[in-house]
Amino acid sequence: MTKILVINAGSSSLKYQLYDMTDESVLAKGRVERIGMDASIIVHEPTGREDLRYVEEILDHTAAVRVVLQKLTDPKYGVIESIEDIDAVGHRIVHGGEKLTKSMLINDEVKQEIKRLFDLAPLHNPAHLMGIEAMEANLPNVPQSVVFDTAFHSTMPPMCYMYPIPKVLYKKHMVRRYGFHGTSHQYVSEQAAKFLNKPLESLKIITCHIGNGASVTAIKDGKSFDTSMGMTPLEGLMMGTRSGDLDPAIVPYTMVKEELTVNEVNSMLNKHSGLMAISGLSSDMREITDNMDTDPNAKLAFDMFEYRLRKYIGSYAAALNGVDVIVFTAGIGENSVILRERVCENLTYLGVKLDPERNAVRSGEDRRISADDSKVEVLVIPTNEELMIARDTYRLVQELQPETV
Amino acid sequence: MTKILVINAGSSSLKYQLYDMTDESVLAKGRVERIGMDASIIVHEPTGREDLRYVEEILDHTAAVRVVLQKLTDPKYGVIESIEDIDAVGHRIVHGGEKLTKSMLINDEVKQEIKRLFDLAPLHNPAHLMGIEAMEANLPNVPQSVVFDTAFHSTMPPMCYMYPIPKVLYKKHMVRRYGFHGTSHQYVSEQAAKFLNKPLESLKIITCHIGNGASVTAIKDGKSFDTSMGMTPLEGLMMGTRSGDLDPAIVPYTMVKEELTVNEVNSMLNKHSGLMAISGLSSDMREITDNMDTDPNAKLAFDMFEYRLRKYIGSYAAALNGVDVIVFTAGIGENSVILRERVCENLTYLGVKLDPERNAVRSGEDRRISADDSKVEVLVIPTNEELMIARDTYRLVQELQPETV
Repeated sequence: MTKILVINAGSSSLKYQLYDMTDESVLAKGRVERIGMDASIIVHEPTGREDLRYVEEILDHTAAVRVVLQKLTDPKYGVIESIEDIDAVGHRIVHGGEKLTKSMLINDEVKQEIKRLFDLAPLHNPAHLMGIEAMEANLPNVPQSVVFDTAFHSTMPPMCYMYPIPKVLYKKHMVRRYGFHGTSHQYVSEQAAKFLNKPLESLKIITCHIGNGASVTAIKDGKSFDTSMGMTPLEGLMMGTRSGDLDPAIVPYTMVKEELTVNEVNSMLNKHSGLMAISGLSSDMREITDNMDTDPNAKLAFDMFEYRLRKYIGSYAAALNGVDVIVFTAGIGENSVILRERVCENLTYLGVKLDPERNAVRSGEDRRISADDSKVEVLVIPTNEELMIARDTYRLVQELQPETV
Repeated sequence: MTKILVINAGSSSLKYQLYDMTDESVLAKGRVERIGMDASIIVHEPTGREDLRYVEEILDHTAAVRVVLQKLTDPKYGVIESIEDIDAVGHRIVHGGEKLTKSMLINDEVKQEIKRLFDLAPLHNPAHLMGIEAMEANLPNVPQSVVFDTAFHSTMPPMCYMYPIPKVLYKKHMVRRYGFHGTSHQYVSEQAAKFLNKPLESLKIITCHIGNGASVTAIKDGKSFDTSMGMTPLEGLMMGTRSGDLDPAIVPYTMVKEELTVNEVNSMLNKHSGLMAISGLSSDMREITDNMDTDPNAKLAFDMFEYRLRKYIGSYAAALNGVDVIVFTAGIGENSVILRERVCENLTYLGVKLDPERNAVRSGEDRRISADDSKVEVLVIPTNEELMIARDTYRLVQELQPETV
């Protein structure tokens, strides 16, 4: 029971990663993109072997799973002999709502609940369920688990998760803060404690998951206390194409002024805002920072992004009454030297002191970027949500069959 | 040129205050409520004399102004001999937009601009214009000035006032952060510097105007750098009946789920949210705190209110890279001992240390409530927006007629 396949199914994509849990090594990873469109793209990367990339028509998620299993067992590109070598499958699920608050093995009840949450995660949960059902069709006898982006945040107190609006919206329509990227925030906080060789429970940690989607979490006693994403992944930080926080009155005002429907205003805030809207250039932080010395719009986009992130760090320092550790992770958090520098140079009031040389290193390893005499530890921890999903799944199948372990 | 009448006109109310600027004393104040309804209420309070309260039918703002002028010159209740003793009138105006960024004397252009901003302040600016026109009809030869709630915040940099949404909304529909309560934030920050006997420009100040409406401002070099209210007074802190910050996606979601129109969702967020919605009891902080030991809903409402305020203080400490002075003002800020205590007991990481005895004093005077060894000065400064309006108006009419001074 050591080979775990991790699946992240989107509406027209399927990402996968096969782990050998004896040493947590990745045997192969890859993705199928543009499922159901005329030219689907398949990328398969067996570790230490030649990559495979090609285009083929892939009708649906079941067909995509079939292709993935074929590649994993392919005589030339495969990494296992037979699909029977796959001991379990772990699925990433964005929204677990209030009931699905930890990783679990899939059964009908769990699938029903994921379905009930379609309204709260209309882009994600339906795709995840397609992924689950496609996998069940192809591997009917293999245990499958679900790992939720929201689960880590289920420890938030009501003070943090309730919105100051009529309670009927909570009771009837599940309106509350859930938070996302939980698997990542949990992983990097655990890694941070290990790196510092201190008990996780003893640390006040602020984790900044800054990728194309971005969120900040305040962690106390090893648990999520508050997080910047809300009922949906729109709230909080400015992101690549998402607005993050706004005066809520802007939404109805814009609908009236521009005669937008509910779907159109959602699309505007999720797909046409953020770095893209302000820079007029790109949603990609690399392009923004490459151009910000000459392009005032790129400069403003960067400044707003940095400022809004810094304000969240400040607000969570107040939430926790102090901070011991700040962690940067995900695409931008791990790679943008200038963003980390600018954020930290205005946090000296907290005792933050960056070491410029450490900050400039690009290593892909867990590392400290604060100076030795910084009062707050500032770390870069590359996130690894797939590994967390594999670990949870591995633990669950071991619990399932104790007699066979 | 020393008697200044200050006017605050609402849609069905008119508040007034008559100042003698030789010593900034209030000669009389009062209000007309329920203008245009069947039983208007008139309250007139001449300083050091018996108050007058009665009910009468008052058709419109012009009639209300007539009543006010009659009371001010009444043989029994009056404080001046004739309306000719009124040297100038100062009006409080909520929204000045991007062009009206300081106090000014009224002319047609100014009135046109106030009208152009009706869309941004639909509840306030039309009422203010009625007040101006009613006063012009009654006192055609008296100079009148306008003082804007937004003006103090006109110094915010683009990084703070731009929202990360398509720029067409800014260019075409004036969507940006304006901020409100500016007159109050400015007044208490100036008073704070005087109280501390330090140059205003040398201090990093966070002013908390916590009344039925509530906002926080970060002040640097004596100027507003950022503030919690936004395009409208809905953004920011949780308030009596306003939600403050929300996941913007909640707005369209609620419209669909509860089949609400734009007006209905605006009404829900402005009039049926905040303390009222969570406590199910009251929008009044006194009732909340009186009941929170026994009523868990009142407790949650208080906790959310306090927590959201504390997070803003934390975020503005990060915006300013530190804070020297925190000021509490307005109804709740000046009077809620327990709110100030709870906020400050979780800000010890900033070096805040409250003196419980000083905090418990209720004096109506400017005062320090932090301990002598607190790293951050914490002050209570009763606000006085009317005096600021009178001062600005007094200065403007003096500039107008230098030869007569």
